[in-house]
Amino acid sequence: MRDIFAHRIHNIDTSEIRKVFDLAAKIKNPLNLSIGQPDFPVPAAVKEAMIQALKDDKSGYTPTAGLVQLREAIAEFLAAKSGVRPAVDDVIVSTGVASILFLLFQTVVGKNDAVLLIDPYFLIYPALVKYHEARPYTIPEDFGVDQIAELRAQLRKDNVNLKLIMFASPSNPTGKILTRHQLELLSELAEEQDAIIASDEIYGAFDYEKKHISMASINAERTLTLNGFSKSHAMTGLRVGYLAAPPRYSGIVQKMVTLQQYTMVCSPHAMQWGAITALRTGIDNELALMKKRRDMVYGMLSKVTTLPFPDGAFYVYPDIPIDSAEFVTQAIERRLLLVPGYIFSTNRNAIRISYATREDILEEGAQIFCDMVAELKDTLH
Amino acid sequence: MRDIFAHRIHNIDTSEIRKVFDLAAKIKNPLNLSIGQPDFPVPAAVKEAMIQALKDDKSGYTPTAGLVQLREAIAEFLAAKSGVRPAVDDVIVSTGVASILFLLFQTVVGKNDAVLLIDPYFLIYPALVKYHEARPYTIPEDFGVDQIAELRAQLRKDNVNLKLIMFASPSNPTGKILTRHQLELLSELAEEQDAIIASDEIYGAFDYEKKHISMASINAERTLTLNGFSKSHAMTGLRVGYLAAPPRYSGIVQKMVTLQQYTMVCSPHAMQWGAITALRTGIDNELALMKKRRDMVYGMLSKVTTLPFPDGAFYVYPDIPIDSAEFVTQAIERRLLLVPGYIFSTNRNAIRISYATREDILEEGAQIFCDMVAELKDTLH
Repeated sequence: MRDIFAHRIHNIDTSEIRKVFDLAAKIKNPLNLSIGQPDFPVPAAVKEAMIQALKDDKSGYTPTAGLVQLREAIAEFLAAKSGVRPAVDDVIVSTGVASILFLLFQTVVGKNDAVLLIDPYFLIYPALVKYHEARPYTIPEDFGVDQIAELRAQLRKDNVNLKLIMFASPSNPTGKILTRHQLELLSELAEEQDAIIASDEIYGAFDYEKKHISMASINAERTLTLNGFSKSHAMTGLRVGYLAAPPRYSGIVQKMVTLQQYTMVCSPHAMQWGAITALRTGIDNELALMKKRRDMVYGMLSKVTTLPFPDGAFYVYPDIPIDSAEFVTQAIERRLLLVPGYIFSTNRNAIRISYATREDILEEGAQIFCDMVAELKDTLH
Repeated sequence: MRDIFAHRIHNIDTSEIRKVFDLAAKIKNPLNLSIGQPDFPVPAAVKEAMIQALKDDKSGYTPTAGLVQLREAIAEFLAAKSGVRPAVDDVIVSTGVASILFLLFQTVVGKNDAVLLIDPYFLIYPALVKYHEARPYTIPEDFGVDQIAELRAQLRKDNVNLKLIMFASPSNPTGKILTRHQLELLSELAEEQDAIIASDEIYGAFDYEKKHISMASINAERTLTLNGFSKSHAMTGLRVGYLAAPPRYSGIVQKMVTLQQYTMVCSPHAMQWGAITALRTGIDNELALMKKRRDMVYGMLSKVTTLPFPDGAFYVYPDIPIDSAEFVTQAIERRLLLVPGYIFSTNRNAIRISYATREDILEEGAQIFCDMVAELKDTLH
């Protein structure tokens, strides 16, 4: 039989998070701290808006770019957040931020283009870089002037300019919120390299003491802002995400809309009405709960290992004494499901723990994690 | 400023149907016969299932390939339809058949691969062929042994084998249902060329006297069956479509699922529950209505021009005396919205009329069409 595959498809592998999901399905009563979705339900008002939309037969095609009313509400939201209001036609709504990312990469990232990621990175970013046969560059998430200088030297040596600077703040997997100074460094870098900035703000609603800063408030002219409703309003499975662009990049949005005509077609209609309501629906109670959990798990973990301070999102990313693939296997024997750090970083000795989980499960799981680390340290010493 | 685009994105243009949509938005009281979606609402039971799913918090991620319960119900449906039951793991659910097509092309269609289309074709097919830098071949929809022989000679001359045979029966835009003999010819061709068959059966529910035959009932081993709920259950904007594969092509489904992890992630969760109910929900009343409309519009049009007999779907595709781009422009001056035939065919002198429209509008629009054709014939003679 001839090869049934196109060459490009060999550039992609199954997500390691999905492998943990599949494993989870086989374990009885797992302590599942691997899941990247809130455990709270869709807020009642948002749910009601979607139900009403279905009753009102909001089930036909929407405009490819998304409902005008939703794009207006998004522009309003972003204006309040960053001080800069995008044009409604510079906003595209798609079936989640993952779809937005794919449309964006298809539109702007060519073979051998240089893409900067911040390590640890969300696992989809390097997968998309590889799929598009682009060249990844990384800087650590605690970067400062020195790391940017090193990167600059490397780019000069490779005789390449960055095409795209791609990051999430707050970070998945560490919860790190980039400082204003760091965002300014990225902004300068983008100017100097003539690079597009893609700021994934999907966890922007989950900040606690330290407040999330939208990249568009630092460099409006070069920043594409990506966001959605999966995390803030527990709509992971309902598929509404968006991208907003400055006038300089209107053409990117237009091409993404064109490609969407042939791919996702539109984000689910009734869900888009839910998203409009979501933009008016705060999640203060949910945030207070998340902060309480974060404090608990950070308190427990910081006694036995080191970890970046989890400013936001709903993850912690502690160091572990052994390779994360092996650690995850050992944890599964104790019913504990975690995501191995190596899929988010070149550093293999870390683990992602999600605290978007019921407290009793979280506490039991965190305790097992702490015991495992303590035991491993004993063994290794 | 440097080029912000990746090379590949220049291979795609705005859908001409969408251009008509945009135009339609600017006309007062248009007679809109351009729309490819049913005018009936989502059946009550299906709507209720989606509402219940939202109430039950079916809003998180589903498995990437789709809910197991939905894939089981799809396997059951296909078994009843074609006599061959696909394995549940050989079914993938995505955000509509357009998404399925894109995942499929990304997975199997490489540069310069030969893809056979049946002319007239659904406009997304040649767009995807071009986007993937593949080579399109076509045969007319009334093909027989002779046209297959000609194609075979051409392929031999070009020293290429077909990688993919892609078609929709019933057809969008003509309504044509391929005969058993034609499907057998395609089956033989696929065997001889070692080609994958992709049978788009999205209009399979819309057949009237002549019954739709699933390609999988003719050649189960080589047929990928594509279908969804957009047309049969008026769920165009709710985004649930699927593909089922024979064991030979399990690997294609696996790769499509992998790519979906990084792109659409999953079809909207609550809508998947609606789809399960849709598979148990007949549309006899809607079909009777569609047939009545088809008879009316066919009766009117066949008096003034020629057109393929519209076996199924909800379109007619009459010949017109002038170029379809010009005809559409003239029709708009009379408030009539149509889709130009040139986007579906190398023959530019035809028009697509959708009869999924309220009868009074349909009748008025069809009358204007008939008048235009008569006037043009007078002028040209």
